[in-house]
Amino acid sequence: MPAEGSAPDFKVGVLGHGTVGAAFSDLLEERAGEIARFNGRRPVISGVLTRSRGNFEEILADADLLVELMGGIEPAREHLLSAMRAGKDVVSANKQLLSQHGEELFETAREHGVRLRFEAAVGGAVPVVRVLEESLSATPIERIHGIVNGTTNFILTEMTRGSSYAEGLAEAQRCGYAEADPSDDVSGRDAAAKMAILARLAFGTPVHLDDVRYEGIDHLHGDDLQYARELGLGLKLVGTAERRDGGLSVHVHPTFLYSGHPLSSVSGSFNAVTVESQTFTEITMSGPGAGGLQTASAVLGDVVSVMTGGARPPAPPLPLRLIEDVESAYYLHLDVVDRPGVLASVMQVLGEQAVSIRSVVQRGLGENARLVMVTHPVLDSSLRVAVEEIGEFDFVRSTPRTIRVIEEEYA
Amino acid sequence: MPAEGSAPDFKVGVLGHGTVGAAFSDLLEERAGEIARFNGRRPVISGVLTRSRGNFEEILADADLLVELMGGIEPAREHLLSAMRAGKDVVSANKQLLSQHGEELFETAREHGVRLRFEAAVGGAVPVVRVLEESLSATPIERIHGIVNGTTNFILTEMTRGSSYAEGLAEAQRCGYAEADPSDDVSGRDAAAKMAILARLAFGTPVHLDDVRYEGIDHLHGDDLQYARELGLGLKLVGTAERRDGGLSVHVHPTFLYSGHPLSSVSGSFNAVTVESQTFTEITMSGPGAGGLQTASAVLGDVVSVMTGGARPPAPPLPLRLIEDVESAYYLHLDVVDRPGVLASVMQVLGEQAVSIRSVVQRGLGENARLVMVTHPVLDSSLRVAVEEIGEFDFVRSTPRTIRVIEEEYA
Repeated sequence: MPAEGSAPDFKVGVLGHGTVGAAFSDLLEERAGEIARFNGRRPVISGVLTRSRGNFEEILADADLLVELMGGIEPAREHLLSAMRAGKDVVSANKQLLSQHGEELFETAREHGVRLRFEAAVGGAVPVVRVLEESLSATPIERIHGIVNGTTNFILTEMTRGSSYAEGLAEAQRCGYAEADPSDDVSGRDAAAKMAILARLAFGTPVHLDDVRYEGIDHLHGDDLQYARELGLGLKLVGTAERRDGGLSVHVHPTFLYSGHPLSSVSGSFNAVTVESQTFTEITMSGPGAGGLQTASAVLGDVVSVMTGGARPPAPPLPLRLIEDVESAYYLHLDVVDRPGVLASVMQVLGEQAVSIRSVVQRGLGENARLVMVTHPVLDSSLRVAVEEIGEFDFVRSTPRTIRVIEEEYA
Repeated sequence: MPAEGSAPDFKVGVLGHGTVGAAFSDLLEERAGEIARFNGRRPVISGVLTRSRGNFEEILADADLLVELMGGIEPAREHLLSAMRAGKDVVSANKQLLSQHGEELFETAREHGVRLRFEAAVGGAVPVVRVLEESLSATPIERIHGIVNGTTNFILTEMTRGSSYAEGLAEAQRCGYAEADPSDDVSGRDAAAKMAILARLAFGTPVHLDDVRYEGIDHLHGDDLQYARELGLGLKLVGTAERRDGGLSVHVHPTFLYSGHPLSSVSGSFNAVTVESQTFTEITMSGPGAGGLQTASAVLGDVVSVMTGGARPPAPPLPLRLIEDVESAYYLHLDVVDRPGVLASVMQVLGEQAVSIRSVVQRGLGENARLVMVTHPVLDSSLRVAVEEIGEFDFVRSTPRTIRVIEEEYA
């Protein structure tokens, strides 16, 4: 192995130079000596493309590997495809692109025998992509649960401590965990993109962002958090990808978790992913969500992985049927007029849709009452029909609220 | 890529055929088709060496890769060295061997340009070896804390629920989590071996099992657990490897953890490792400890990793000075005669050794009293001197007990 000083260069072209790009360049320089010691080659930045400077073709021609940190679909997609067609390995942190054009990128990587790495697209500093790709290829995965959006987890943690949604969001913005326009995060769309990517890796089935049903946290009330505490449950925005009835279900919803669940103690802007398999039961990985340094560290890890020679494009797809309608337990919250027969009417509608109830708490509030129920597992479609019918009763005072529940019994 | 049926064989020779060997063979057969789909080659078992059957030289000659599941030092060491000298890649689950002859094995792997994988040696199903080797090579690691022995974590979990040590151990044996002779686990030696391996990976410094100071759980009392609860702390057997004063400290001790620490909620026979770095703050990975299936799954993951071409031997060593004497906070438990001046005498000795006290609780018990203190961080050597002196006072009724504490402030 050559001495550090004499190690040949491994040339890295960088597309985009925002916060992550700058952090990546600094980290690469800081770690270049140590990486050379392991790999025999010293990584160097051979070119940077920004909106105002640099020429893509020249940067491509000069690089051993391209790192894409532009974000968005175009021109990131076109640049990555061009690079792979030119036989270059690529690293990307672009979850939008991977969740919407993943198969095109994977197929191009396979066709040209190049590596496409994207650890930084999901899970911040948590190496979930690598673990799914490599360690677990030997293991049939049954289910993934993930807290994959640090912004919403931060807001929910604040709400658990008594803040309103608006206060939690303002605090997240003040701390730099939420954008001025937080809609991609709070709507659940960012988490849905990441779950699409993880589902592809874990189950081999192409999953497009549009295939993932998602719901955000912007409609949650402080009340929901308070009931969660009373029920001994935590409230998280959970993405789930799981085998169900020979198919695959991928969705993102606010979810109540029993207190022993490995995700229930993940707080603040942290991310965490639990992978379940009959072979090893469950593995949980957690760490800080995507800040500039964490993302830079994950990207540099991918660069080192390519230098080491280990990464492979995902296997050709092996589609499972995508299933929309799955069974879950639900928490159901109703504000009703407090008069005889109300509970009976509600229970009758639930019974007609085969929704069976695990627990009910009724609380008087002067003329009104609050009904809080937890159901046994029930098909989403049945619950939706039941809740819609219940919402039409004249004794119901506000739109019924439902939140998915993951209980110990069938976790 | 060839169709599954036509994929060429990748021949795996297996040394040893106990519980793990049998589980490995079954899992390999079950997953061979899926692995062939990813890798283009189909793994098959080409030979098995047991005490009574098989010839090592023939198995070696016929295999693309050898898997060592014999355990112990010899003949496992000699077989692995022979295989690597013959240019074969190897996979081992042997923590004793790696923690005592690691450098010889790594050096041989480097010299002959072969791969040596050992995910199953540490952390059960948790892919901590892979993550340290690959993801984190781009990142300077500051500290690792690990619960790396499932047996002791199971016993401590039982003790937290009110069992005595003996009852916890008996229950662990009944559930198959502890051997008939549990001394390797309960003494902390097994955890020390694993921490030696992790420290080598994370810091590049050769660490022999003999370099790791360790303490077990067999001397813990139910009282210690009760005080932990009162102080809001969890009690775990924690292995630590960390940079300190330009050197490296590796040790295993029963440790009180504040309730927000990522390891404090790891219960039963689970393992977990927290990796700290200034770049990404901290990452925690947790999962079931080493059962037959988990180990088999980790071993098969290593086989797939070699087939994919990614694994490299660890970099040549870059020794850090090994430091024995480090600063920690401590819990200190004294049974004393309840008479005036006792606390003053104790405090004077502590003060002479520069042990400063964070909290004291004194409880009367008839003629005796119990003093429970938590110190600020103090050098181990200073605390030991102080505790030895205190133990010589005539008012001390039983040997003073000390337990390391990891507090939020400097975690």
